[in-house]
Amino acid sequence: MAGKDRVASFNISKFSPPGIVNLDIGDPTIFESYWRKMGEKSSLVISGNQFLSYFSDSKNECWYLESKLEDEIKRLHSVVGNASVEDYYVVVGTGSTQLLQAALYALCPDDGSNPVNVVSAVPYYSSYPELTDFLRSSLYKWKGDARTYDEGGPYIEFVTSPNNPDGSIREAIVKNGQGKLVHDLAYYWPQYTPITSCLGYDIMLFTLSKCTGHAGTRIGWALVKDKDVAKKMAEFNTITTIGVSKESQIRAAKILDLVSDSCQNPGPDNFFKHGQSLMAERWEKLRKVVGQSGLFSLPQYPKGHCLFTGEFSTEAHPAFAWMKCNKEDIDDCEKFLRGFQIVTRTGRRFGSDPKYVRVSLVGKEEEFELFLERLLAIQEDF
Amino acid sequence: MAGKDRVASFNISKFSPPGIVNLDIGDPTIFESYWRKMGEKSSLVISGNQFLSYFSDSKNECWYLESKLEDEIKRLHSVVGNASVEDYYVVVGTGSTQLLQAALYALCPDDGSNPVNVVSAVPYYSSYPELTDFLRSSLYKWKGDARTYDEGGPYIEFVTSPNNPDGSIREAIVKNGQGKLVHDLAYYWPQYTPITSCLGYDIMLFTLSKCTGHAGTRIGWALVKDKDVAKKMAEFNTITTIGVSKESQIRAAKILDLVSDSCQNPGPDNFFKHGQSLMAERWEKLRKVVGQSGLFSLPQYPKGHCLFTGEFSTEAHPAFAWMKCNKEDIDDCEKFLRGFQIVTRTGRRFGSDPKYVRVSLVGKEEEFELFLERLLAIQEDF
Repeated sequence: MAGKDRVASFNISKFSPPGIVNLDIGDPTIFESYWRKMGEKSSLVISGNQFLSYFSDSKNECWYLESKLEDEIKRLHSVVGNASVEDYYVVVGTGSTQLLQAALYALCPDDGSNPVNVVSAVPYYSSYPELTDFLRSSLYKWKGDARTYDEGGPYIEFVTSPNNPDGSIREAIVKNGQGKLVHDLAYYWPQYTPITSCLGYDIMLFTLSKCTGHAGTRIGWALVKDKDVAKKMAEFNTITTIGVSKESQIRAAKILDLVSDSCQNPGPDNFFKHGQSLMAERWEKLRKVVGQSGLFSLPQYPKGHCLFTGEFSTEAHPAFAWMKCNKEDIDDCEKFLRGFQIVTRTGRRFGSDPKYVRVSLVGKEEEFELFLERLLAIQEDF
Repeated sequence: MAGKDRVASFNISKFSPPGIVNLDIGDPTIFESYWRKMGEKSSLVISGNQFLSYFSDSKNECWYLESKLEDEIKRLHSVVGNASVEDYYVVVGTGSTQLLQAALYALCPDDGSNPVNVVSAVPYYSSYPELTDFLRSSLYKWKGDARTYDEGGPYIEFVTSPNNPDGSIREAIVKNGQGKLVHDLAYYWPQYTPITSCLGYDIMLFTLSKCTGHAGTRIGWALVKDKDVAKKMAEFNTITTIGVSKESQIRAAKILDLVSDSCQNPGPDNFFKHGQSLMAERWEKLRKVVGQSGLFSLPQYPKGHCLFTGEFSTEAHPAFAWMKCNKEDIDDCEKFLRGFQIVTRTGRRFGSDPKYVRVSLVGKEEEFELFLERLLAIQEDF
């Protein structure tokens, strides 16, 4: 089962001798230096008598949502301009991972006789198949690639934009008229891609991990248009975890507050501009190394007018490199790179060709530099 | 579906005019005054650059577990003497609710042709049916009362001790030789019941909510004997939420540290002795009011030798009162009490008789006092 692979990814570093560069997981430690520099103003104090109650705001459909977090989520989207918040319900989750499952639960009828088909276009985020199928639910079932899906009847399509693993901007594929869409917008932030429009889809998912780098905080949020869907998503989070850590919620509120404030700043303290220059620098270095030979290739991205920076010709700098090995006799790029102590995620996990791998570009600086060194050495050998 | 009821419980206070006393949910705010009194020494500071990574300790089977939390969990069990920790694996979850599901996932074969039956003795914790069945998994299926269960083949039994709702001390019921047990020990702490022995079951679940009162923190933990089971439980938490909030984990570590320290103290700063006197006081008041007439009755508990306090004749003071209405023409005690603006949870939700209700005794002082007042008034009327 696919779940094994994913969990193996999280346990992989225990088998990693110091020489291995692990770029399998998108562990967003690249932003750590920014937060270190912020110093005390980014600190949070929690006193012993806080958060004894399960409840935050029992008037809200999402009864466990801290109102301060709701306010900061809405404020940040308004500042960045990436998603509409007016007339949307906010549902918070333990990472957007929990919300993906909550959306499946909310969009499937309780009493359906057949499981609803779940699809996403190849290459799709490697976790979709496993989080859909690992409990063998009769409510929904993974059906694979949206591009080849041609059944009638109800379905759910995950639309990831920018896409994980390949950074492309996407729209829904299937058009049989009976679909429900879940837009996974984890990477729709200015450090990764130009913000070309303010999105207003039915269900839009975001996560603190990829927005500010706080992956350990496990906070995701959904902007949901329909009240009953929002309510049922909150119901899922109630049944599975009786809400979401309040410590994480107020920490996320604090971090988002600082990020929104920083957007007033034209200099390097502007979080997204800082992030954008970090990502641009890594992509520039990577493209230079890959350009040394024809052994590997990388996607090209169209430039766009970014509403956030106001710049007309902004490049995308995705969190992952979707790298192809062009050598004919190398069918399995992941295996090939592993031979050089570089751990990546095989294209197979994304429903795609094993000639591709996904490489995390959001890890620690020293890991990234070591990766470049090795990539250079490999190319010299071949 | 039962899930509706549960979620309704969490949304109920939105429909509660100020006059309603809501004792449906066991929201453990009774301990707030203790934590307020602890003041600054119970405060925690989190800086902006903490917890960017998903990982805590990649050498641990539970790779997202903060080692400080693991240490404090083991220390507290050693101080209290309620459960063995030597040679046990610690798996942390987003509340013990997530761990109940993780245990089901870990104990069922991936490739079983039939769902494994899940049972618990009536009256059972009202969430078991819904968290087993809400996704209509083919791995496991709720089968109800363990006492009447007589099928062969594999099964899983939830053993809750002290039991929620009725506070009784329990052991496994079904004995067909093919069962796996999950011991839910959320209330096996000195404020609720004498600690009569140090337990050493295969899977033992605990939660910060009921131990220290920090329900909003959403931290539960499992002590697991078998390495593969521990690993598969951590796998469940990886797939569903990619681990557990690190803010909550270090907060829980801090709180447990203070509780263990306080156990050295013979006075009212000893957390469990303080909790015990609070619970004893409420039970004494409640028994006095209920004793005014024969309209209601409450369970009696045997006294026991508490290894923690060293006292030979310690009474149990459960977190909930399992209250029976003895009046012949009142079949539905929950409905009857609701007529007097007292919201409780019907016995029906626990697989039991609607003549019973579960009443939370761990809420705010003013709510408890209002409950007693109304109970007294009801008895005077009847």
